[in-house]
Amino acid sequence: MKRIPLAVLAVAGVSTAFAAATAALEKPGHGEASPIYGVTLPEGYRQWELVAPAQEAAPLDELRAVLGNAMAIRAYRAGTLPFPDGTVLVKLAWKHVPSPEFGPAAIPGAATTVQVMVKDSRKYATTGGWGFGRFIDGKPADEAQHRTCFSCHQARVKNHDFVFTRFAP
Amino acid sequence: MKRIPLAVLAVAGVSTAFAAATAALEKPGHGEASPIYGVTLPEGYRQWELVAPAQEAAPLDELRAVLGNAMAIRAYRAGTLPFPDGTVLVKLAWKHVPSPEFGPAAIPGAATTVQVMVKDSRKYATTGGWGFGRFIDGKPADEAQHRTCFSCHQARVKNHDFVFTRFAP
Repeated sequence: MKRIPLAVLAVAGVSTAFAAATAALEKPGHGEASPIYGVTLPEGYRQWELVAPAQEAAPLDELRAVLGNAMAIRAYRAGTLPFPDGTVLVKLAWKHVPSPEFGPAAIPGAATTVQVMVKDSRKYATTGGWGFGRFIDGKPADEAQHRTCFSCHQARVKNHDFVFTRFAP
Repeated sequence: MKRIPLAVLAVAGVSTAFAAATAALEKPGHGEASPIYGVTLPEGYRQWELVAPAQEAAPLDELRAVLGNAMAIRAYRAGTLPFPDGTVLVKLAWKHVPSPEFGPAAIPGAATTVQVMVKDSRKYATTGGWGFGRFIDGKPADEAQHRTCFSCHQARVKNHDFVFTRFAP
């Protein structure tokens, strides 16, 4: 019978843990990087755990959902602030459209933007430790749009490590 | 050096897969079961993948998010209808409150209900294969409320296997 030495399993486990811990910081996501910050769409983000939904009124008129990687969710559940390096948050947004089947409800229409925040306190030291990426159809928005990210977060949610979204129980 | 026989790992793997496949059908969730259907809150549902957010207008005035177990998500991604036995959908709902930090946004307030749909085509043959559970603070709502579930789903979304929510890309 073939056997796998425990030491090999242990080393593989350590490597995997190390890879997971550094992936969000080091590993490029897919597609083009955002201007200023060099943030890419992280792999597999659509499978991440829900932090909270939200709605944005006109003129954007959107339904939104913020998802977080494992490090983000652990920090939220533990109430850890500031968020640790490696935290990644992704906000998905869709047009807010009336449900054709149930009058009082509004549901997601076409996808609009995907917005990413990556915590790396050294790389992004001048913007609260956060790098930002705003993507439309998988392509980063222009530099002018990225210039507005941090100033708004800084003005409004500095006391929550520059993150708007709270965990919805 | 201690070694783990591969056969042991393989058997453990099969057991785990079997347990996972049958869990949604057989394993009770936690807490009290819903009237009529005997549906409980499934273990770990808050970690499940997002199907879609939604908003419900007054008088309920809620933000919502539907999460699905692995079988549900696979069916959604593959476009499988009807949903296979073992599919579980959970809708979380919160009061829709204005963000104190960003004018145009509404965010989740207090949690209101958690609503569960469980697919078991034999057990729930008379209600389209679905069992329903509606929970408030972890306790099932009364029988009268559960009498309304299927009739509404049947009247409005029979052509989508009695499920309102579509997968938000």
